[in-house]
Amino acid sequence: MIDALHFDSNGLIPAIAQQHDTGEVLMLAWMNAEAVEETLRTGRVCYWSRSRGALWRKGETSGQVQRLVELRFDCDADALLLLVDQTGVACHTGRRTCFYRAVRDDEVAEIAAPVVDPATLYG
Amino acid sequence: MIDALHFDSNGLIPAIAQQHDTGEVLMLAWMNAEAVEETLRTGRVCYWSRSRGALWRKGETSGQVQRLVELRFDCDADALLLLVDQTGVACHTGRRTCFYRAVRDDEVAEIAAPVVDPATLYG
Repeated sequence: MIDALHFDSNGLIPAIAQQHDTGEVLMLAWMNAEAVEETLRTGRVCYWSRSRGALWRKGETSGQVQRLVELRFDCDADALLLLVDQTGVACHTGRRTCFYRAVRDDEVAEIAAPVVDPATLYG
Repeated sequence: MIDALHFDSNGLIPAIAQQHDTGEVLMLAWMNAEAVEETLRTGRVCYWSRSRGALWRKGETSGQVQRLVELRFDCDADALLLLVDQTGVACHTGRRTCFYRAVRDDEVAEIAAPVVDPATLYG
């Protein structure tokens, strides 16, 4: 199945993480083939960190892990949708979702507040 | 707000389209700054087609348009989440969502069938 995926010129594919029961979109990150393989094998979501240039086992520092419920992919096989069960918060800012800013009335509004102090996640 | 977004080296940013009321993730596509601006201005979702190298007003051929309900962006400002109201189907295969394949029991399963004949969309 991994052979059927279309990775970009950097060997990466975008992966959307969605909370499996509420439908909340938590984050978008990237995977290489090794991250996809590890995620399917272990049931714990592993991304590729573009900033660190390394596998990123979500929650390995913060404890905010994502358990894989189901991995889906799209018609062009160039995007992944991960249904996950998110422990705690997905965002490094301490918010449940990374998508906490919205354009409303032509201005940027923060629509979600941190529920955890980031210092307790990375301190 | 568009100036705050981080576009990649090709001038693009990934955009997730989610049906606003059901939470269903419909597709992932790409936008350049012009597509973001047009989408916000018109309230009708416009992407950048990487294959055609042109603005892609979703539904201009198929009639399956996306009305923008809200545009959100993530903590790193390098991904968009579009809450939309999808007319008909999002996928060119005639399925409601592009994410119709899943890995189940180590095999790829089709978990959604076409609800529209693609020939009627593009005929």
